[in-house]
Amino acid sequence: MGADNAALDLSGMQRAVRWYPPAYDIRVEAAPIPQIIDPDDAIVKVKLAGLCGSDLHIYRGHEDVDSELTCGHEIVGEVVALGPSFRADATGRPELYSTLRVGDKVVSPFTVSCGECHFCRIGFTCRCIHSCLFGIPTLPGGQAQYVRIPKAGGTLFRLDGLQSPSAGLSNLADSSLILLADILPTGVFAAMQASQHPKVASLLAGKPYPFGGGYVPGGSVSHGQAATALQPDDRTLTIGIVGLGPVGVCATVSLLDILAGLEASQGLVFQVVAIDPLESRRNKLQAVYDTIEPSWKGSGRFTVAAVEGGKKLVQEWTNGAGCNAVLEVVGNNSALTLAYDIVRPFGIISSVGVHQEPPLPFSGRDVYNKNVSFDFGRCPVRAMFPIALEILLKRQDVFGGVGTEASLIDRIVSLDQAVEMYKLFDKGQCGKILFDPWV
Amino acid sequence: MGADNAALDLSGMQRAVRWYPPAYDIRVEAAPIPQIIDPDDAIVKVKLAGLCGSDLHIYRGHEDVDSELTCGHEIVGEVVALGPSFRADATGRPELYSTLRVGDKVVSPFTVSCGECHFCRIGFTCRCIHSCLFGIPTLPGGQAQYVRIPKAGGTLFRLDGLQSPSAGLSNLADSSLILLADILPTGVFAAMQASQHPKVASLLAGKPYPFGGGYVPGGSVSHGQAATALQPDDRTLTIGIVGLGPVGVCATVSLLDILAGLEASQGLVFQVVAIDPLESRRNKLQAVYDTIEPSWKGSGRFTVAAVEGGKKLVQEWTNGAGCNAVLEVVGNNSALTLAYDIVRPFGIISSVGVHQEPPLPFSGRDVYNKNVSFDFGRCPVRAMFPIALEILLKRQDVFGGVGTEASLIDRIVSLDQAVEMYKLFDKGQCGKILFDPWV
Repeated sequence: MGADNAALDLSGMQRAVRWYPPAYDIRVEAAPIPQIIDPDDAIVKVKLAGLCGSDLHIYRGHEDVDSELTCGHEIVGEVVALGPSFRADATGRPELYSTLRVGDKVVSPFTVSCGECHFCRIGFTCRCIHSCLFGIPTLPGGQAQYVRIPKAGGTLFRLDGLQSPSAGLSNLADSSLILLADILPTGVFAAMQASQHPKVASLLAGKPYPFGGGYVPGGSVSHGQAATALQPDDRTLTIGIVGLGPVGVCATVSLLDILAGLEASQGLVFQVVAIDPLESRRNKLQAVYDTIEPSWKGSGRFTVAAVEGGKKLVQEWTNGAGCNAVLEVVGNNSALTLAYDIVRPFGIISSVGVHQEPPLPFSGRDVYNKNVSFDFGRCPVRAMFPIALEILLKRQDVFGGVGTEASLIDRIVSLDQAVEMYKLFDKGQCGKILFDPWV
Repeated sequence: MGADNAALDLSGMQRAVRWYPPAYDIRVEAAPIPQIIDPDDAIVKVKLAGLCGSDLHIYRGHEDVDSELTCGHEIVGEVVALGPSFRADATGRPELYSTLRVGDKVVSPFTVSCGECHFCRIGFTCRCIHSCLFGIPTLPGGQAQYVRIPKAGGTLFRLDGLQSPSAGLSNLADSSLILLADILPTGVFAAMQASQHPKVASLLAGKPYPFGGGYVPGGSVSHGQAATALQPDDRTLTIGIVGLGPVGVCATVSLLDILAGLEASQGLVFQVVAIDPLESRRNKLQAVYDTIEPSWKGSGRFTVAAVEGGKKLVQEWTNGAGCNAVLEVVGNNSALTLAYDIVRPFGIISSVGVHQEPPLPFSGRDVYNKNVSFDFGRCPVRAMFPIALEILLKRQDVFGGVGTEASLIDRIVSLDQAVEMYKLFDKGQCGKILFDPWV
């Protein structure tokens, strides 16, 4: 691959989806093909670009942006040009600086991450000191034929030449791979923040808190004189998901995958309730769930519910105690409030929704009195890639299709349809859209 | 021991510190000696009772209490009567129902915990379904000669007959043991919430997030193509403490103990900055720190600072990144705001301060943009007892004294001085006070 790009003329113009302030103004127009402007840059020919719920923040004019921009931050494509930093002797830098080649297939996370700063080294890649979101005025996005990737040796994830999971990789459609750019890793992150938290990890390990979740001073001290022994009920975990848009579906499937792995090895029982006020979203998740092979669903309970029904179910399932953890995948205060309402004392709220200006809807007494833990913020997509890729490969029954009742991707369209698709997506009248810039 | 109690007449009156609404009205007066009213009750003869910062919430009339009460929730004493549930054949219940005897020395946590409900079994003892705080109208507190302990087989911690750490136990003064009732476990809890959180635990384990902090689906997948290798700087953790009252001192010493254990085994380097606006509190912590044996202090940095100096120091120490974790040990919004200001992206705020009605001082965007994690709430004292006891035994250089510049306990006084002591304590004109009801 890549041979046909050798003679590409990258000096001209391309088609791109552009947004103009103040709001709701999408134009598909000619724009310059991006050029290498920094030695660490790569130019990627876009195979598919996603339309994401967070594109709507810009679209609706909620982001205080006052100049036009090229939209999009979900990108799968092929490298067509590399800056001078990419060379065989680029040692001591992220691996791709010495190994990435023109023609390699890549996915880009929705933010730039250098791979070299403290935050990147320890896996907090979305807070890279060079972090920059694609699809803002200073960094044109991926809803175009070509996109410039800054710090590309750190930012990009190469799909060619992967060792461990490469067996199934060549079978994956681009429409499946693009889920790695944002929404699947974000779903994995939401689920892992909950499952790794010490207040949950103790229960998973079958040891009373704080003896199951990390370093304990003294090490050998026991719960001592404390309580009656753990009972079977104590190994039943109840987890809620609030918000069943595309990221919520990814979070649910990721959660089920994590729980299936834990249940098999440790005899745990899980109860999952997935909540959304919109019937279309509930139906989508139910259809997704119905496609999953039964052996992988575990022995616990799984129910999709509307808001009041979900609250009631949590009460019934837990004798009023509430969920051990809630994944908040919406990004507004009514979702956070619902998460708080259904979480139990010493529960976790893993919030990956993109929140805006309003103050958090909790008093200090609310959070003190319930011993709530919160994990907020953006997914470090680049760091979550390997885990998300394993789930993507394993769950092609969920993540492999396009345009079916159970598929996450609604349709693949031309850039020319962008104006219409933004309108439909904004009104909730279509599912997840991908743009193919070459049709 | 206990023989001298055999003939005790528990039917009469005792001396007690009583609070009257609406505020600032403390009276030392005669009150009935509490009686066994439930089979699970114990009556404890109080050796010492503490005056705690959170007693001031009641004192100042901030708790919406409209009837008088007996104050105090820090209790060390001796069992003088047991309800009928305490008998040798009380199997299947918490151990103390079959083993506790009249005459045993005990510490009571500041809340009741049955030891039998789901929350108690898994260590979340402060959210026991029978939870009740000592020192409210319906449960008279410990600033008296006798106190009734509900669900005593679950609530109490017996100091006699302990196996593992009992070597040094008989040497501990009651004025040291009473720290177990609230403030030392709360300090341990503040420190452990930070050190066990996956975002910190990954760094402690020397693995990029999320591979160092708990179950990872797929297990063997690596960070893959991601970043340059971890560097020595990545093993340097910076932790802040906001608030240096008695609990803040306990949190600091507990944190240093946890860090010393980690550093010795894993070659980590720690930087700790302890912040309080009050000079007297800073001086107390500095004096405490100066008494600690040097071999235990580790090779990192430790500085006590005022607010602006502390903020500046964090900037300098971390090249502007901020603290990996901040322990918030105050319980108001200015402390939470300071904690947020000095924590780095992907940092932890472990908040054990008792917060009141005001809304949390953060917008959704604040917490999303910094990927902040919060652990809020009350310490499960009963579950933290064994760990706190080990630290108490180890750190008698800090926790053993009374009335010295470096001791946590300022003085031990008669109940008759309660009116004056509440006034002084409310104005910050004395340190931690203990009442001896028998002088």
